[in-house]
Amino acid sequence: MTGNLVILNEVKNLYLDTIVAPATTPGTGAISIVRLSGPDCFRIVDAVVQLARGTISDAGAYTIHFGKVYVIPSGAEGEASVSPALLDEVLVSVFRAPHSYTGEDAVEISTHASSYIVQELIGLLLKAGARFAEPGEFTRRAFLNGKMDLAQAEAVADVISSSTAASHRVAMNQLKGGFSKELARLRRELLEMASLLELELDFSEEDVEFADREKLLGLLDTTRAHVDRLAASFHQGNMIKNGVPVAIVGAANAGKSTLLNALVGEERAIVTDIPGTTRDTIEEVINLDGILFRFIDTAGIRESRDTVENLGIERSFRKMAEAEIVLGMLDGTAQPEELAAQLDLLGQHLTGSSQKLILLLNKADLVENWAHNKNVLIINKFVLLRDSKVNVLELSAKNGQGLDQLKSTLVSLEKDLISGQNATFVTNVRHYDALRQASSALQDCRTSLSRGIPSDLVAEDLRRALSAINAILGTDLLDPELILHSIFKNHCIGK
Amino acid sequence: MTGNLVILNEVKNLYLDTIVAPATTPGTGAISIVRLSGPDCFRIVDAVVQLARGTISDAGAYTIHFGKVYVIPSGAEGEASVSPALLDEVLVSVFRAPHSYTGEDAVEISTHASSYIVQELIGLLLKAGARFAEPGEFTRRAFLNGKMDLAQAEAVADVISSSTAASHRVAMNQLKGGFSKELARLRRELLEMASLLELELDFSEEDVEFADREKLLGLLDTTRAHVDRLAASFHQGNMIKNGVPVAIVGAANAGKSTLLNALVGEERAIVTDIPGTTRDTIEEVINLDGILFRFIDTAGIRESRDTVENLGIERSFRKMAEAEIVLGMLDGTAQPEELAAQLDLLGQHLTGSSQKLILLLNKADLVENWAHNKNVLIINKFVLLRDSKVNVLELSAKNGQGLDQLKSTLVSLEKDLISGQNATFVTNVRHYDALRQASSALQDCRTSLSRGIPSDLVAEDLRRALSAINAILGTDLLDPELILHSIFKNHCIGK
Repeated sequence: MTGNLVILNEVKNLYLDTIVAPATTPGTGAISIVRLSGPDCFRIVDAVVQLARGTISDAGAYTIHFGKVYVIPSGAEGEASVSPALLDEVLVSVFRAPHSYTGEDAVEISTHASSYIVQELIGLLLKAGARFAEPGEFTRRAFLNGKMDLAQAEAVADVISSSTAASHRVAMNQLKGGFSKELARLRRELLEMASLLELELDFSEEDVEFADREKLLGLLDTTRAHVDRLAASFHQGNMIKNGVPVAIVGAANAGKSTLLNALVGEERAIVTDIPGTTRDTIEEVINLDGILFRFIDTAGIRESRDTVENLGIERSFRKMAEAEIVLGMLDGTAQPEELAAQLDLLGQHLTGSSQKLILLLNKADLVENWAHNKNVLIINKFVLLRDSKVNVLELSAKNGQGLDQLKSTLVSLEKDLISGQNATFVTNVRHYDALRQASSALQDCRTSLSRGIPSDLVAEDLRRALSAINAILGTDLLDPELILHSIFKNHCIGK
Repeated sequence: MTGNLVILNEVKNLYLDTIVAPATTPGTGAISIVRLSGPDCFRIVDAVVQLARGTISDAGAYTIHFGKVYVIPSGAEGEASVSPALLDEVLVSVFRAPHSYTGEDAVEISTHASSYIVQELIGLLLKAGARFAEPGEFTRRAFLNGKMDLAQAEAVADVISSSTAASHRVAMNQLKGGFSKELARLRRELLEMASLLELELDFSEEDVEFADREKLLGLLDTTRAHVDRLAASFHQGNMIKNGVPVAIVGAANAGKSTLLNALVGEERAIVTDIPGTTRDTIEEVINLDGILFRFIDTAGIRESRDTVENLGIERSFRKMAEAEIVLGMLDGTAQPEELAAQLDLLGQHLTGSSQKLILLLNKADLVENWAHNKNVLIINKFVLLRDSKVNVLELSAKNGQGLDQLKSTLVSLEKDLISGQNATFVTNVRHYDALRQASSALQDCRTSLSRGIPSDLVAEDLRRALSAINAILGTDLLDPELILHSIFKNHCIGK
């Protein structure tokens, strides 16, 4: 990517300063890290940290150095008699360009985990010439220095916030370029088409038709299928990142809230560990075997003539429609006709056969045999009438009976989210939108091609698709002309 | 300290395992550190981290190595088809005994700041043979391996929790052995006396009196004065660590709460930064120029016959008695006789001349001239009648007028807490108690000596003093016999 480098060198001139920021969260740990990156970082650290011998400027890459930091106590800056006090003894780790996270010269200073020390140390480094980094600036520099593309840079935040095995795996795959590789393949396909079309365009006056239209159409369909497949993975990718939506639906007395409490109660410690978890009154996020599930408690459903109550019931059905999995709570102690009516209501509102249904026959601890048998018959009839597979579990939300089986059923229904180990999932709305734009551009392209529209207009559609893919990788920072130039350079006419 | 080493080698045998723990707080930073220490740590890290080349076992001290950590996704451990997934790319820092924090072989692994990654990585290290560290175990090992004494080890936690320049300086001085050096001097003096006495004891049958009793008495007094001086520093040390108690006292309508809100309101951001701050309804801790002040709002005081109200007023006077500084709030708009009565009440309850008093003539924005002049006269008369210096400030707690002057007055009253740069302050109750025990033992010793009580009983008193000092440094982990043995070894009889 020669064009890449041309631009990057221009951009780099804007980034000649040295940035500093804490790299760890202030808290009660043992160690805090302050991080610097930029051409002046060794000189700045030498001005602030006194090594036992030598200097950081002369230190080799990947070496660690013990040093001391002295500070004039605040409030005593003016007084000549006051000698500097020891702020901390620190360890300095040295990274030399381009073999660092940012690709620049970089330093990590390890201190005692005190927010006071970190604050004073950063103050000294700022005075010595560093600038406080903007949010994400270390990763932005890594991107600008060509250490990662934009999709990879975006994955850094996802890796850090991932709280389950599944979301971590997807984010790590994206960070390590798994997603970028798929996009690069798409890009190559699009560029191949584009170059064929552009050549045709250049020589159109000579009536030279280089591109075999049939071949082009085939290529187009394959590529578009590829784009669509990636875009479709957003459904799963989003569930991996934000949790599989599970609606708990049923009559008011069926035990929905008891079930939610039972599920959450046990896993509360894990739940509170997850940063950014939405703490809605009716939603709880739980990590089961590495998969995040988002449980949504809904208002009780029944046939009603009360307008206000109907609004709540409507809302429950909407939540149910949006859910990936529906937990249909049935009161095992209900009269058979009541139960049948509940099942009927549920069945009416399931959104097609793609939605996964688990019927829970609750209050297993209370139910009498004859009623139970009757209810089981009604449920079996309902299940037989449906095309898709329905799971039926007996449970007591109150005493926890059947809870483990419910959990393992939920995990097995969504095990694709963790089993497809090296599969790429789109988890970012920006990427999803870009892929849909690419797909739509390819659709336009196909229409134009099949209608015999001139190559230059077709090429414009292709460029739109390419530009959408480039936007994901961040290569749209480059001038499109430069890309095409660099591509055509490799396509000599005689070939 | 040869005896030291004998014991330490025995204790070390108990610590042959390798420990692991996170060294940073889980949060939203960029980097997390996982730390290992112990004889097996290189082997364990090699089993978990795949380096690009070489092994950690062969790596030099103070070097950094890039590596990858793979993990079998949880929930998929059984499945043979599942290949390990990349958990993270990490940097491994190598420290070799004895040049590490603990004095043992040690490793720090730097990962992305994800609690999921840290948890999985620690899981892998535990499987490879590490043990999860107990709280403070890294520092405990540093102590057991002779890298620091107990007083220094205790200072580690103080350094981390210090939130002001003053508390940080005192904690850092203790960590770097400033306090220990003073104790070592005390210890030498006590040992010198003890050895003189013990020699006298050993040869008592031969009537050889080695110790010059007058000289011994002189030594004793000097040493005890030294011990008492250190113990007395706890008053300031405690204020440095936990804040200078400032009681806001005055009539109910004088504006005490408005003042507290004005002080806190501005500094709230700083206050919430301080870990462990007591969030009492009537106490607020504020950092002014590197000194912590603990403001205590009290119930309004006045002459009253109401029993319940009198209880509240009594409590206010108690808080006032415990305070280092009293802020006497006076209502500038009050009638002169009211003001005089308030001053009278205040004056009666000040605890001697050691307590610092700041009189605040509040509501400066509202007061009329003639009343103001009259009130100022009354105040001046009160100030003249007192021996100690009283500060008088006019202020409006409501609009902030005079607030900065109040703050600078507070800081100047307590500037000793930050100016005595290399002075040692006792900040730890355990140390304070031990010093008082030592002082009391030395008092007993003096009584015994002056009464001509036999040397062996006097020596017992000295041993108690020595043992109290040793307890601060942690040398009481050693057998007292061993210490004396090691001391006497150097005292050959002919000398």
